[in-house]
Amino acid sequence: MKFSIQATDSQSKARAGEITTDHGLIQTPIFMPVGTAGSVKAVHQRELSDDVQAQIILGNTYHLFLRPGLDVLHKAGGLHQFNSWGHPILTDSGGYQVYSLSGTRKIKEAGVTFKSHIDGSTHVFTPENVMDIQRTIGADIIMAFDECTPYPCEFSYARASMDMTHRWLKRCCERFDTTEGLYGYTQTLFPIVQGSVFPELRKQSAEKIASFEREGNAIGGLSVGEPAEMMYEMTEMVCGILPEDKPRYLMGVGTPANILETIALGIDMFDCVMPTRNARNGMLFTTQGIINIKNEKWKNDFSPIDETLGGYVSTTYTKAYLRHLVVSKEYLAAQIASVHNLTFYLWLVKQAREKILEGTFYAWKNSMVEQVMRRL
Amino acid sequence: MKFSIQATDSQSKARAGEITTDHGLIQTPIFMPVGTAGSVKAVHQRELSDDVQAQIILGNTYHLFLRPGLDVLHKAGGLHQFNSWGHPILTDSGGYQVYSLSGTRKIKEAGVTFKSHIDGSTHVFTPENVMDIQRTIGADIIMAFDECTPYPCEFSYARASMDMTHRWLKRCCERFDTTEGLYGYTQTLFPIVQGSVFPELRKQSAEKIASFEREGNAIGGLSVGEPAEMMYEMTEMVCGILPEDKPRYLMGVGTPANILETIALGIDMFDCVMPTRNARNGMLFTTQGIINIKNEKWKNDFSPIDETLGGYVSTTYTKAYLRHLVVSKEYLAAQIASVHNLTFYLWLVKQAREKILEGTFYAWKNSMVEQVMRRL
Ligand SMILES: [Zn+2]
Ligand SMILES: [Zn+2]
Repeated sequence: MKFSIQATDSQSKARAGEITTDHGLIQTPIFMPVGTAGSVKAVHQRELSDDVQAQIILGNTYHLFLRPGLDVLHKAGGLHQFNSWGHPILTDSGGYQVYSLSGTRKIKEAGVTFKSHIDGSTHVFTPENVMDIQRTIGADIIMAFDECTPYPCEFSYARASMDMTHRWLKRCCERFDTTEGLYGYTQTLFPIVQGSVFPELRKQSAEKIASFEREGNAIGGLSVGEPAEMMYEMTEMVCGILPEDKPRYLMGVGTPANILETIALGIDMFDCVMPTRNARNGMLFTTQGIINIKNEKWKNDFSPIDETLGGYVSTTYTKAYLRHLVVSKEYLAAQIASVHNLTFYLWLVKQAREKILEGTFYAWKNSMVEQVMRRL
Repeated sequence: MKFSIQATDSQSKARAGEITTDHGLIQTPIFMPVGTAGSVKAVHQRELSDDVQAQIILGNTYHLFLRPGLDVLHKAGGLHQFNSWGHPILTDSGGYQVYSLSGTRKIKEAGVTFKSHIDGSTHVFTPENVMDIQRTIGADIIMAFDECTPYPCEFSYARASMDMTHRWLKRCCERFDTTEGLYGYTQTLFPIVQGSVFPELRKQSAEKIASFEREGNAIGGLSVGEPAEMMYEMTEMVCGILPEDKPRYLMGVGTPANILETIALGIDMFDCVMPTRNARNGMLFTTQGIINIKNEKWKNDFSPIDETLGGYVSTTYTKAYLRHLVVSKEYLAAQIASVHNLTFYLWLVKQAREKILEGTFYAWKNSMVEQVMRRL
């Protein structure tokens, strides 16, 4: 993996960069659609590349490990072959999903014991086997096995958890660095900064993570319920410590405003289920603001979903038609809304990139945050 | 509407024709995907035209009447404008759905009183208002309001019902012929032959229907549970009476074998929910036979769904991937399987047309029925 920076904004920490992987180029800042079980829900792979113009998608190790399972993925030749997505993929470490199975998982120094939400079977994730699992899945960028603390979280728990995450990272790196990719292309490992919302822990963790000198770094444990201002504060502090010449990935973020504000703080990569999950609930992000398409006011609105955005889905189907599909619980409702919202998210980060390259990012960002977050 | 015949098969009653409508050409024999509520479930309009290569789709009057309702459809400028499908559309009369609401509907000479399955509200369909409703929906081809008898059905009930359907047809024609389309293009009305599985009733009904001299004719009340041989027998007899120079539409049919066998009897048009409904249950129709994709045997089959069929969906995604999506209850499962099955159905009727034009239909049909109906 290579990372190069084309431009940095003079009024903020925003930067426009390029990540080169064996599956192609990623222009940053970038948003990664979430393809939980090897499929971005309700979106064809062709739509992802041609309409949404996604450059990299995310897969969830926990879900892929349970279904289709490692045996199928290995025989397929990895996830890219299995789901016919030829562009870059990033996998999370499975930790986040496992912790949300509260009551059915046990976290110990050795690893985490958990029960499958599908059949109740018991499994163990360790820093070592999570590296092996992600080798088998075969994503271009894989994540270290960490503990993601909830919000709020006691200082003492956050500190102990962070320390364990650091020890686990050492084990992840040892395993990763002594193994190879299975399918003939290179994988890279990103470590994750933790520390909850405590500035001194975040500082410690960022310094520790930076010292591992991996090819990219991630910030985890944010966007878990804390106020946005707190998320921005932590992100700003951590970005000040993580190396400038490596991509920074803010995990699980976020709203269009969150994304624009943290691009301004130096973040290069994002993922979030919001555009697809909210699409399935009838909430649309548009260039003009946020639409609850179930609302009666759209019943007779025969204008395209979002003319400014362009693209087949957003300009062919009308608001009235999409509302009808949502009300009628038609499959096509989720399909249209998901492609639309993802197209918007990718448009937003592409616009941000262009503004950074032009040197007009900061003012644009401030007006855009207001424009895209207003309720229509 | 115009209908012309390009070729007739020498060894059967099959014919290759063309229907010209104000929304474009339909090459027969043709299969019409069912778009119940203005959407063919899980399939984008672009996929319908470009991948499936559908030439005409069907809408259900009952569903469209309830949702989005006539007011929205009228304001939209008709269904084509509303759902962005620019090619021909056919609507059924709403009768079929209303009769299946058994217990909540009352059939009288004047019309049928029924309760909405959505909110329990009471409505009345009459031969006259069903014409008005289909004027408002604005399909190119609209259907007479008939009673579709169940199977089995007493002879006396079938006869009385058929007679009422004939009286209703007179009322439909009077209303239709004294009104005009609302959106500047022409609509045409197809009457429907009934008579259950009783040869003398079918003969009477076909003669009566033919005497109305409409631009096309339909056969209803079949594919409702009777043995296939009985369906073929009725279809053969009715086709022998209905005029040769007008398209014949066999409603609600059917399996690939049903379609091929009744093309051989002189049928030009088909519709059925089978390709899309079965797709959502993991049953695939392919050029090599029928696949239950949930079956364990496909777990590690990384071959395309159907290489012979061609097209993005059938050649990009593998059987193993589709099986995983079905097992994981992913949206994309229904999307892939629906586009695939419809592509197969349209391929099948296109092949039939080509074989009729080449003069090789009959032998091809016999071998193809075996090939596509075998279980893989
Ligand atoms: Zn999120
Ligand atoms: Zn059917």
